[in-house]
Amino acid sequence: MKKIRRTVGQTGEFNLIDRIRRILPVSGNRDLLVDIGDDTAVVQIDRRRALLLTCDIQVEGRHFLFDRTTPYRVGRRSMAVNLSDIASMGGKPTYALVSLGLPAELPVESFDRLFEGMRDEMAEHGAYVIGGNLARTKEELVVDVTLVGEIAASQVLTRHKSRPGDRIFVTGMLGASGAGMEALKAFGKKVPRKYAELVRRHVQPVPRVEMGQRVARAGIASGMIDLSDGVAGDLYHICEKSGVGAEIHAACLPLPERIGEIAEISGRSVLDLALHNGEDYELLFTVPPDVPERKIRALPGKTGIPVTEIGKIVGKRAGYCLVDARGRKTPLKPAGWDHFRKG
Amino acid sequence: MKKIRRTVGQTGEFNLIDRIRRILPVSGNRDLLVDIGDDTAVVQIDRRRALLLTCDIQVEGRHFLFDRTTPYRVGRRSMAVNLSDIASMGGKPTYALVSLGLPAELPVESFDRLFEGMRDEMAEHGAYVIGGNLARTKEELVVDVTLVGEIAASQVLTRHKSRPGDRIFVTGMLGASGAGMEALKAFGKKVPRKYAELVRRHVQPVPRVEMGQRVARAGIASGMIDLSDGVAGDLYHICEKSGVGAEIHAACLPLPERIGEIAEISGRSVLDLALHNGEDYELLFTVPPDVPERKIRALPGKTGIPVTEIGKIVGKRAGYCLVDARGRKTPLKPAGWDHFRKG
Repeated sequence: MKKIRRTVGQTGEFNLIDRIRRILPVSGNRDLLVDIGDDTAVVQIDRRRALLLTCDIQVEGRHFLFDRTTPYRVGRRSMAVNLSDIASMGGKPTYALVSLGLPAELPVESFDRLFEGMRDEMAEHGAYVIGGNLARTKEELVVDVTLVGEIAASQVLTRHKSRPGDRIFVTGMLGASGAGMEALKAFGKKVPRKYAELVRRHVQPVPRVEMGQRVARAGIASGMIDLSDGVAGDLYHICEKSGVGAEIHAACLPLPERIGEIAEISGRSVLDLALHNGEDYELLFTVPPDVPERKIRALPGKTGIPVTEIGKIVGKRAGYCLVDARGRKTPLKPAGWDHFRKG
Repeated sequence: MKKIRRTVGQTGEFNLIDRIRRILPVSGNRDLLVDIGDDTAVVQIDRRRALLLTCDIQVEGRHFLFDRTTPYRVGRRSMAVNLSDIASMGGKPTYALVSLGLPAELPVESFDRLFEGMRDEMAEHGAYVIGGNLARTKEELVVDVTLVGEIAASQVLTRHKSRPGDRIFVTGMLGASGAGMEALKAFGKKVPRKYAELVRRHVQPVPRVEMGQRVARAGIASGMIDLSDGVAGDLYHICEKSGVGAEIHAACLPLPERIGEIAEISGRSVLDLALHNGEDYELLFTVPPDVPERKIRALPGKTGIPVTEIGKIVGKRAGYCLVDARGRKTPLKPAGWDHFRKG
């Protein structure tokens, strides 16, 4: 009888992460505040400061296609997704290391544009690429970025402490990236100008670094996460770790202009775009009910980025659901993007 | 006329790094002590401490082949090469982030063994894997490790300050890894036991972390580097950055037992194995002539690792050469391993 060997392709990202957690020892080091399983590791430097460490590997054909994007944008995006992870901790990004797996056929100009994109994205946040490593791959471009950030030790946020009764807020608009993607699919290179902003949100996500720092400094959040996999998937991570449930109010979701038109064109519902489409890179955070309203109203400051209440944390037994305008509840599917399964 | 587009495959690693250096801005940050172009970036944390950051990307088919090694060993090696970079700065390794590009067909057991190897290699140095990221690739396994370390700010070593007259030392034996590789090529799985130690040095390099710290604490080195590309190539990096030349004395090179036999079997010269074969992961460092001899003799301590003087730094005009037993000089080819060109 042939022994069937299970492959990583059959296993899925979250199971693989569980396996890693079982294999790796828990560090006994007291300076390690957050480790495996969170997007960003936190190491205490001294009484006042903590170091943030995060990495994200992007593979051609999986995370980007050169017939739909440019090397410059891949460079910007590779930094943006990491900046977003630092933002979700309320941190200040400082330095990045870049490892590249390069197919021999990549034009040198593409190589240059890639680094120009990284440089420009980092510059917007006063951060720098300070090192890296190059290797050859057969055919796929692989871009792995490790980003370092800093935060006041007293402001370290994890996603473990959301409690029933906490209010749920998001920054910006939900579903813009998904709508932009659908616009590109429908119109190709001839996207009508009225959808340009949606497309821009898809091809060039804006990490909410300043807003993350504002939330952390305000000291009002019991948990925070960046929306890379869609509200439904990312909020579920917070709920799982805190052992709680959540209710999202459909009528409260902040929606970008013209998302309704794109929903019609693409045949997807507005709710699907807003809840299940990843890559908005907005921040979602929970706030205990006793936090004064003025502190929340003060969050946008001069950023121009809206902060919207979209629901509340409930007990685990109350479940994980969407509430419609008439108060009817339907279970919310936590389906996000498994970066690993066949896609 | 067709415009010919130059590819990265035609460009070579060092030219690509030059391009990166031209594109990226120099950080004005005063805390950044060493950046792009060195294997390890150094960021000052406070008056007493500095952070070390290094990364190394290894690609299946290029850095390792599963018909010649095991996933466990790939895991150990992926950490070892980074630990060696931290060692070359005299630092103490603390934490690693691991990004993996995984082909779907990789057996889950291989995935587990990979992490067990990483864990065991890190454990030998009191360091931990604390985060990472997974992605799918088409066919190659890609392992990118970012390693963080720490060092006293007063002990930060760069490779820029070697001066004519400085003495050149290496730890351990040279050419062991190359000889082990040739033994494997010649004998396959039936390598005679007498060559087992050479093979071990090839398949499981030992980063000289403790020795690196001993050199840094002694405060005697004007420059240090780890031997990943061979003495001839790596010493050349030190010389280029310091604007100096060097003389290596062939008769002084510390050679492992039985390297002569392997040279004969493989048809390569002993000198070629010792000077041009990378992956010994020993340390090479330069010491100003006025450093007391007893400080150098004290370096091995209880480590059991020999420290051998192999030559001296000379003026740039005096060149870069090998001196034979009769005092005759021949130019030393700085050829190392370009990780990028077709190999």
